[in-house]
Amino acid sequence: MAERPVVIVSNRGPLSFRIDDDGELVARRGAGGLVSGLAPLVAGTDAVWIAAALSEGDRVAARQGMVEAEGFRVHTLALDPDTYRQAYDMVCNATLWFLHHGLFDLARRPRFDTRFRHAWQAFRDVNRAFAEVVAAEAPDGAAVLVQDYHLALVPGLLRDLRPDLHTIHFSHTPFAPPDVWRVLPPDLGAELLAGMAAARACGFHSARWADAFSACCREQLGVAPITFASALAPDPDDMAAVASSEGCITELAALDAVLGERAFVVRVDRIELSKNLLRGFQAFDDLLAHRPEWRERVVFGAFCYPSREGLPEYLAYRQEVETLVRRINERWATPGWTPILFDPIDHFARSVAALRRADVFLVNPIRDGLNLVAMEGPMVNDRDALLLLSPEAGAWDQMAGVARPVHPYDVSGTADALAEALSVSRADRASEGRALRQRAAQRTPADWLADQLAAAG
Amino acid sequence: MAERPVVIVSNRGPLSFRIDDDGELVARRGAGGLVSGLAPLVAGTDAVWIAAALSEGDRVAARQGMVEAEGFRVHTLALDPDTYRQAYDMVCNATLWFLHHGLFDLARRPRFDTRFRHAWQAFRDVNRAFAEVVAAEAPDGAAVLVQDYHLALVPGLLRDLRPDLHTIHFSHTPFAPPDVWRVLPPDLGAELLAGMAAARACGFHSARWADAFSACCREQLGVAPITFASALAPDPDDMAAVASSEGCITELAALDAVLGERAFVVRVDRIELSKNLLRGFQAFDDLLAHRPEWRERVVFGAFCYPSREGLPEYLAYRQEVETLVRRINERWATPGWTPILFDPIDHFARSVAALRRADVFLVNPIRDGLNLVAMEGPMVNDRDALLLLSPEAGAWDQMAGVARPVHPYDVSGTADALAEALSVSRADRASEGRALRQRAAQRTPADWLADQLAAAG
Repeated sequence: MAERPVVIVSNRGPLSFRIDDDGELVARRGAGGLVSGLAPLVAGTDAVWIAAALSEGDRVAARQGMVEAEGFRVHTLALDPDTYRQAYDMVCNATLWFLHHGLFDLARRPRFDTRFRHAWQAFRDVNRAFAEVVAAEAPDGAAVLVQDYHLALVPGLLRDLRPDLHTIHFSHTPFAPPDVWRVLPPDLGAELLAGMAAARACGFHSARWADAFSACCREQLGVAPITFASALAPDPDDMAAVASSEGCITELAALDAVLGERAFVVRVDRIELSKNLLRGFQAFDDLLAHRPEWRERVVFGAFCYPSREGLPEYLAYRQEVETLVRRINERWATPGWTPILFDPIDHFARSVAALRRADVFLVNPIRDGLNLVAMEGPMVNDRDALLLLSPEAGAWDQMAGVARPVHPYDVSGTADALAEALSVSRADRASEGRALRQRAAQRTPADWLADQLAAAG
Repeated sequence: MAERPVVIVSNRGPLSFRIDDDGELVARRGAGGLVSGLAPLVAGTDAVWIAAALSEGDRVAARQGMVEAEGFRVHTLALDPDTYRQAYDMVCNATLWFLHHGLFDLARRPRFDTRFRHAWQAFRDVNRAFAEVVAAEAPDGAAVLVQDYHLALVPGLLRDLRPDLHTIHFSHTPFAPPDVWRVLPPDLGAELLAGMAAARACGFHSARWADAFSACCREQLGVAPITFASALAPDPDDMAAVASSEGCITELAALDAVLGERAFVVRVDRIELSKNLLRGFQAFDDLLAHRPEWRERVVFGAFCYPSREGLPEYLAYRQEVETLVRRINERWATPGWTPILFDPIDHFARSVAALRRADVFLVNPIRDGLNLVAMEGPMVNDRDALLLLSPEAGAWDQMAGVARPVHPYDVSGTADALAEALSVSRADRASEGRALRQRAAQRTPADWLADQLAAAG
């Protein structure tokens, strides 16, 4: 893997623990984009993975120090639940995520008040607790790969605690440009930037996010940090294994039975404000309204599973999405045809079956650090499906020139792009489909990990 | 005034017309920031002013061609009311204003759909109608001063219709940085930028907005437009006249009767999302909650008059503001003391009386092209009031180094700044008050007009 010992630090770890009926600690593989990308590369190596305890089982595991299971060496970190909740909900999810994705309704949010300042202190405490465990556990001169904005202060803390370590920070989100970054009070903004910039290098999925981070550092700290751009990618073998699994084949048959010969537009997303679900459905509605020839001939499969439902913003958004889907279905459905197939269950084999059966992928985020679906789709698809992709996704870097751009706010333009893509025959889309497959397979997760280790030096 | 004949082009004109009981057309001076800045400089000159007909009287005036009244030569332009409404409400107010001030709740708005595309065509039609009247009316080689984003396409149209004219465009709003500008579909964005960049020069109240416009032009058009920064300023003589008027003195006496010896925090604003009214009140609430010594000793005078109530966003915002004010007053009021004096009536003499009596000005916008109140306040104040000013206002350029910065999103920080400013005694604030007065009077409206004429060449 590398010359140096490796320590991975992330909010979610590769294992989640539970106590079984006999009182034994049982480990299971965890989920999430970061984890599913990294875990297969780390399993079976000597790397140590440090992550927060998220469940009661995790908290029991935390008391045992380092746990070895399923090929991982995991150190789970028990934090005060209230402190963790404040840091995770108020600072990470409700503030930093919204900031980097440009999602604030600025006349109302954010509001840096006394309550927020308490949450900020909690965020500091969580970062310090992580840094102290790393400082205690990391072998001499280890490469420490700190993952994502939840742990932005860790590199700065480690520089003081363990100057021998080779720490990098990798961001899985976009990064706010200076004009948006300025929404943070200057003291908080400078603390975050300095925390990250203390790493040997800061990595991002796209050069665009790296440039935004550098611009913020120049403006607020007067320093030029070392950055690198390195996109994560789906693992072709993993994807092939899921696509050919029995579960996926069963789901595909079920889908085929519903769809028949109909064209199939597919999106797979969390129910997340940055994913731009509303305008995707509005564009489909526009297609059916202005191009009656597509009525009964196309189905929009929206595999959109709930996320972060502890935050009121997400509950409200889910309701808006579901209301809109219902309204469009009520408007256009005929006996035997429901225009939008909305599936809110997170079921990976079913999503992959939909990606196989798709004729058109719609990936239209407002802003997205990367977006793996834009690559997973072409990788497993059976029908040379075309890809409609927002240039605001980091994945645009890999897919530009082959994917068809959709401007995320342009509902009419998205409807036009859908109509155009749908009207290309399967035969005529073969070369575009092939080019998409090639682009999607250009990089592997191993390339991404190697870039991080190289940046750690 | 200038060597060249002058033509001023703006949405609102210096006069509004009505039909009196005898069927005669009667002209009155109009209102609005742009008009009140320009009108005194233009009255009595040969300049021609071209503006939209906004009332039934204006439409009658429009049929007469050029009207001379009150020292103005005005050509009022009758537009199809539905076309005008679509262009003004949907494109200008609900889209371009929100874009330049960064006010979109991007998960939901804007939405460039079929309806918007119709409004966009209306916006083009309005701009073309203006350009055609200018082309027909402007003397040979005239300096044409096109005002504000409503008329962004006019310079481009005039370049083709009347290449002899010396056209400039002046923006009274901020300008969106490239990352925000990209929210517009590229074809619309490029059309707007090209329309403005066709002017001999594009002016803004702050170099920051000029730089944002240039960056957008470089990115989207690949051209570097000629820009200039020139801030409008209040007219010291006008302000002195209002401040010493009988109406103002009556209002001041009424205010003094309510306030007694209490400290007085003052804001004067339209009820407008960019003005950041909610966080101003939240900061005041925080002050009363955490610094009980200020209870009963301070009043927050909020002179906030309704605006654009045809847009649902503004009605909703007004309701939120009024609910918050009521809640804070219910929380803290005591017999004889109401913490927030909320006055939603647009009454200039009363606002000026409040500016005279203020101890602290709170001007905390999210983003603001200029903000005249930040200069009008110090200009008329009797008590060396201190100025808390958001660096996101264009007026920051003039007032920086003397005004005290308040970060618009930092509610606790704004509460701290209020507490600090309130605790400076009148004697101790004399030099700061003097410096604010000097800064506020640095420029005059005549300087601003001269800069536009110089840029026209």
